[in-house]
Amino acid sequence: MDFTPSARTVELQAELTDFLHTRVLPSEAVLEEQLAAADDPLRYEPPVKEELKAEARARGLWNLFLAGGSPHGAGLTNLEYAPLAETMGWSPDLLPEATNCSAPDTGNMELLELFATPSQRERWLAPLLAGEIRSCFSMTEPDVASSDARNIATRIRRDGDEYVITGRKWWASGALRERCELLLVLGVTDPDADSSRRHSMVLVPRDTPGVRIVRSTTVFGYEHASVGGHAEIVFDDVRVPAENLLGSEGAGFAMAQARLGPGRIHHCMRLLGQAERALELMCRRALSRTAFGMPLAEQGVVQQQIAESRMEIDQARLIVLKTAALIDTVGNRGARIEISTIKAVVPRTVARVVDRAIQVHGAAGVSDDFPLARMWTEGRYLRLGDGPDEVHIAAVARQELGRHQPAP
Amino acid sequence: MDFTPSARTVELQAELTDFLHTRVLPSEAVLEEQLAAADDPLRYEPPVKEELKAEARARGLWNLFLAGGSPHGAGLTNLEYAPLAETMGWSPDLLPEATNCSAPDTGNMELLELFATPSQRERWLAPLLAGEIRSCFSMTEPDVASSDARNIATRIRRDGDEYVITGRKWWASGALRERCELLLVLGVTDPDADSSRRHSMVLVPRDTPGVRIVRSTTVFGYEHASVGGHAEIVFDDVRVPAENLLGSEGAGFAMAQARLGPGRIHHCMRLLGQAERALELMCRRALSRTAFGMPLAEQGVVQQQIAESRMEIDQARLIVLKTAALIDTVGNRGARIEISTIKAVVPRTVARVVDRAIQVHGAAGVSDDFPLARMWTEGRYLRLGDGPDEVHIAAVARQELGRHQPAP
Amino acid sequence: MDFTPSARTVELQAELTDFLHTRVLPSEAVLEEQLAAADDPLRYEPPVKEELKAEARARGLWNLFLAGGSPHGAGLTNLEYAPLAETMGWSPDLLPEATNCSAPDTGNMELLELFATPSQRERWLAPLLAGEIRSCFSMTEPDVASSDARNIATRIRRDGDEYVITGRKWWASGALRERCELLLVLGVTDPDADSSRRHSMVLVPRDTPGVRIVRSTTVFGYEHASVGGHAEIVFDDVRVPAENLLGSEGAGFAMAQARLGPGRIHHCMRLLGQAERALELMCRRALSRTAFGMPLAEQGVVQQQIAESRMEIDQARLIVLKTAALIDTVGNRGARIEISTIKAVVPRTVARVVDRAIQVHGAAGVSDDFPLARMWTEGRYLRLGDGPDEVHIAAVARQELGRHQPAP
Amino acid sequence: MDFTPSARTVELQAELTDFLHTRVLPSEAVLEEQLAAADDPLRYEPPVKEELKAEARARGLWNLFLAGGSPHGAGLTNLEYAPLAETMGWSPDLLPEATNCSAPDTGNMELLELFATPSQRERWLAPLLAGEIRSCFSMTEPDVASSDARNIATRIRRDGDEYVITGRKWWASGALRERCELLLVLGVTDPDADSSRRHSMVLVPRDTPGVRIVRSTTVFGYEHASVGGHAEIVFDDVRVPAENLLGSEGAGFAMAQARLGPGRIHHCMRLLGQAERALELMCRRALSRTAFGMPLAEQGVVQQQIAESRMEIDQARLIVLKTAALIDTVGNRGARIEISTIKAVVPRTVARVVDRAIQVHGAAGVSDDFPLARMWTEGRYLRLGDGPDEVHIAAVARQELGRHQPAP
Repeated sequence: MDFTPSARTVELQAELTDFLHTRVLPSEAVLEEQLAAADDPLRYEPPVKEELKAEARARGLWNLFLAGGSPHGAGLTNLEYAPLAETMGWSPDLLPEATNCSAPDTGNMELLELFATPSQRERWLAPLLAGEIRSCFSMTEPDVASSDARNIATRIRRDGDEYVITGRKWWASGALRERCELLLVLGVTDPDADSSRRHSMVLVPRDTPGVRIVRSTTVFGYEHASVGGHAEIVFDDVRVPAENLLGSEGAGFAMAQARLGPGRIHHCMRLLGQAERALELMCRRALSRTAFGMPLAEQGVVQQQIAESRMEIDQARLIVLKTAALIDTVGNRGARIEISTIKAVVPRTVARVVDRAIQVHGAAGVSDDFPLARMWTEGRYLRLGDGPDEVHIAAVARQELGRHQPAP
Repeated sequence: MDFTPSARTVELQAELTDFLHTRVLPSEAVLEEQLAAADDPLRYEPPVKEELKAEARARGLWNLFLAGGSPHGAGLTNLEYAPLAETMGWSPDLLPEATNCSAPDTGNMELLELFATPSQRERWLAPLLAGEIRSCFSMTEPDVASSDARNIATRIRRDGDEYVITGRKWWASGALRERCELLLVLGVTDPDADSSRRHSMVLVPRDTPGVRIVRSTTVFGYEHASVGGHAEIVFDDVRVPAENLLGSEGAGFAMAQARLGPGRIHHCMRLLGQAERALELMCRRALSRTAFGMPLAEQGVVQQQIAESRMEIDQARLIVLKTAALIDTVGNRGARIEISTIKAVVPRTVARVVDRAIQVHGAAGVSDDFPLARMWTEGRYLRLGDGPDEVHIAAVARQELGRHQPAP
Repeated sequence: MDFTPSARTVELQAELTDFLHTRVLPSEAVLEEQLAAADDPLRYEPPVKEELKAEARARGLWNLFLAGGSPHGAGLTNLEYAPLAETMGWSPDLLPEATNCSAPDTGNMELLELFATPSQRERWLAPLLAGEIRSCFSMTEPDVASSDARNIATRIRRDGDEYVITGRKWWASGALRERCELLLVLGVTDPDADSSRRHSMVLVPRDTPGVRIVRSTTVFGYEHASVGGHAEIVFDDVRVPAENLLGSEGAGFAMAQARLGPGRIHHCMRLLGQAERALELMCRRALSRTAFGMPLAEQGVVQQQIAESRMEIDQARLIVLKTAALIDTVGNRGARIEISTIKAVVPRTVARVVDRAIQVHGAAGVSDDFPLARMWTEGRYLRLGDGPDEVHIAAVARQELGRHQPAP
Repeated sequence: MDFTPSARTVELQAELTDFLHTRVLPSEAVLEEQLAAADDPLRYEPPVKEELKAEARARGLWNLFLAGGSPHGAGLTNLEYAPLAETMGWSPDLLPEATNCSAPDTGNMELLELFATPSQRERWLAPLLAGEIRSCFSMTEPDVASSDARNIATRIRRDGDEYVITGRKWWASGALRERCELLLVLGVTDPDADSSRRHSMVLVPRDTPGVRIVRSTTVFGYEHASVGGHAEIVFDDVRVPAENLLGSEGAGFAMAQARLGPGRIHHCMRLLGQAERALELMCRRALSRTAFGMPLAEQGVVQQQIAESRMEIDQARLIVLKTAALIDTVGNRGARIEISTIKAVVPRTVARVVDRAIQVHGAAGVSDDFPLARMWTEGRYLRLGDGPDEVHIAAVARQELGRHQPAP
């Protein structure tokens, strides 16, 4: 397992870091102003994003996430992509999207790459790869514990040459944005089938009659307007042509799982970038403030917070890299337990680090004068999004116990 | 130390609990609607509050916080008030204010009771006690580590028969509300005096020329509109008559300390109510959801979260009651270390309990479909408000070490 | 709930504290020497104990644990006894036994008080109350998870006018001491009965043929010689007269439960004394050592350790007092959940406090130059003894969930 | 940074693992019996060790620790040695010594390799490399906080062609064993020099007049007889020839630091092996015990303990490997902060893992029926040995803050 960054990574990393510091970080205030001035921030597409996208593309920083096999990406392995995704995490509202590497589109593009028909690819994948439209992934439901995916209840019924969708989804991130044109919807096509063969996935244009976006849910008070909010959507006898089926009937659950593997590691990589930024802010604050006659940086309790954060981040990064390398060598399925591990480890680690940074900042830390409060909510949210901690922890435990189970 | 509730407490508690369940909790949705419909929610005074205030007053639930000596309160001790304040905490946006027991007015009324001149009392205290106007307390500053109160830098300069105030404050909670008419401002009157005799407090009508409310800071994305936000205020050569001095020159720091003692314990009492509500929600959710073939309530990890929460709340309550009893018997000063203890213990405990409740709720927990996300931010915020954990922990340590210090 | 100590407690506490400081603490080194010089420390009865017993009795500090109803005790309530037991915990190898208040004899005496026949009382209870003999309680078994008491498998078979006992027990504390003459043994008399009516308890003289003490188990390397070790005992067709049955057949489980309630709270009280002693040692060490140019007592991280310890101890004590008061008013059964609470809370708290004290002492802390290492093992052991944390935590959870369960 | 094990490592690892399972683990009970039968276990050299040493040597498992440059070792890098040391940690009392890779001799041999004169090498290093004699390292002192090495006070005075040593040391591990012939002693040769140039190191034969071993200190009740205990030694005008100076005068502190780097990482590697063994025991116990009608392995709380342990171990191992790779590439000095990191992280992690395994084992876990209690004390002890956590955490913090310090 060789973690040494490749020459390609080093080169892209230098470019990306320069872009981050010279262009992206200074644009954060611009983004905020544009959103603040918008009538409907959740729908609004801030021009600053388009400018950055154009520049990123010109710099060769585009679709970096797409794994080696795809003709459209940069041809990076997961291990090569990891440090780039971490850097993107420093400015989570701008840099991932500027490079066309932002969730949930990345996962959706990967699914389309793998399973779409030529005409589906032409209609949806091409504009997504070009960053012209946006998409959302619609799986979680408010009425059941979706941590157990078998609970998912939205019905997708075949009717002649159409599918008819009925149900209620939420946490469909990005669905409220103006550019969002496509919903990937998971639902039950065959209630009598085995629990892992019961679901299918269909491609639903957002403007299809019967698709009703009810509201956007907040995350600790944040609307997450910059990423298009989190939509609750009612599907009321929504009809799409049968050719909008993605892959085959009954393959929905397997495709959702396939999608979540890379999605989870990308989230973890980006979170590490947030943690590094929080640690930098913590150090700078500690060096610049004095209380009780001593700079915070010289106070033992503050030093402890800083050191624990550094040590936890370094451990978390290594296990993310190891997981990336595993995905590269044995695939999502083979790295399943490691993906569960980082999904359980990284959000908690990052939330702890950011929480310490907040404390060192005093009341300013909970406000929006620093990106810390917002960052913390990302870490906390991801202890639930893409499967709650408990599910991943149980998976790790079962695997570990399995090693010691006497053979039958 | 007798924690048995008095007959008076039992009676008021029954009334208050009935009010909570029959009138206040059902009004929470009304409050939300009225705020959502307001043009400027931070300024807006929702009518539902006035209705509840009228009813609370009619029920004899008014100004309960005022300690025994005051002719205006219910004549309760702190120990008697504690369970009432806890009950108020169940609905923090409505019930404290409905009973005229909400921060920061309670602390301000206490200060005025103790130190105001007859004309100050007539002008400010009377309408505050009647719930007709609101006030704010303006101490913390953005440019210094205010955890060390000696850092406070706003200047209050005597000029003839006026005081002239120059400086910048923030986290002045409630200052943006329409009814807020009074700011209590702490600043330096004598920079050359001993650090504890350097500050004074003046009463500043909010509409005084030179008072400029710059903005409201958020708390983890929340505007806290229901309590009037947290104002950042610039004082630009603000002139008030010399008779607006509260107490004597140089007594500002001592008065601020005096104010914070009861303020801190009231916060802790109310937080306990929030924790109880979170625990109730956690239990109900656990009983009503099924995942992986078992109700959450039967899953060991969920049970553990519930039990740890119950055990931590019970411990926290007892130490709050002990502190209340101490304040009643030896005063704020004598109970200083216990107040620091609960200030360090209770917000952390409550944040932990609420965090567990959020996890059991899944993604719904971080949204505003439940009051949990908002509650968590209260607990987290109060690890910084009224002095960060670190300051209180250091005070407890010094006291403990002092016991073992060899006599000089 | 009135925690004010009674006049009787205050008086006894003064006497006990004087005894602790003038006689008991100075005797700890003597105890250690006598044990070190003994051929078989586990069997040996150190003379220093007899001296202290005589003196304690003369001072009126004898059998203080026996609850109000008993004619043999001091007539104290649990609430009155609590601070005395805490003081005893400061010197756990000497003071509890010196006052005839040490486990497991206290629980055994309580059982005999409640359930023994006149002749059983004469033969066993009288010399136990006089401190002339010692007894042990033999319940836990090595071959099953005894956390679930229904797993207990030792057989007690009626054969004519005798009971025949066959099985293996362990963690029978004190069984190896020379003076130990009585074993209370729990076993199955009716395997077909309901799980709570299956067991009985018999009184077995230690010198009965077939009783074989196999060994003593250690606790983190400690032999616990001062309390007679923890015996593993094989019962090999051991025959006792039928009149040695304690209480009635099938009542064994209920009696064991009855015994554990007070036993658990006594352990918790004594542990608090250990924690206080550890905190005192921590403060003294911090005041007397200098590293990196500063006394440890002035270093923020050390202060934090001290303050957290003080705050946790104070919370733990209050909940122990509340539980004691509850036992006094509603009985063991009514206070069942509170007993589970303190059993889950106090050992963990104390182990944490002692662990911090160890760290502040450096390598000396893990050695026997200070009582800390030994103390830590007591706290850790009691997370398992008398039921593991998990069992108590589950009990608290079930109670909490039960409050919210919809009525059937 | 390539963590892939080399072919050499894979081969040695297979041999070592076979040796562990077929020969070493079965010998643990033999070791215990031989020690139990010994008159003076601390001095006694159990024959089973010699048998294993002979076999290990025959298998080519000898002096594996010696870094690449040495002609006497296996020529492994630190990264290559790491998994071997982890495997050794599974049986810490036997396998490290069987392969002549046990502390403190490893560190002493490294020092002698680097700094000894030819005649010192011939007299001491040769028999150490052959496993014929043992040595100890004598640095820590009871009377000062040795966490700050500048506090060390033992005097080494030049007198003609001799050095005269006066002082008191403790925690000199292994000094009581019969085979221990050499003490490396650190003391002050020039009290007026700069604090890092004040100390020297001398080689003292254990039988030199004036060397008096006062006692062995215990670790949580354990004597650690299998490794020769931890000696407290008085040096009372001990005279050695001047040629017994190791390296140059004033270089003692630097040599001690040089020695501690590899020593710390070796400890961490071995601790990981202990943690893996604890986790295996925890899984097996969970699979074999039933309580409350369910195997422990199916209970959520137990699963959580297992999964958290696996995730923490995996993170800890990666950061140890990274540190090993760094030492290989930039040396001890360059990897200084990473060494502090693992020294602060690994013992805490391992102690947590083992503590969970203990809890799953019930009371058996604190006894010596399983190696867990003993293992826990190793982890706990190493939070203090070779520098307490606090020192390492502060070093990490200073480095982190240094990155953000404005240039002067």
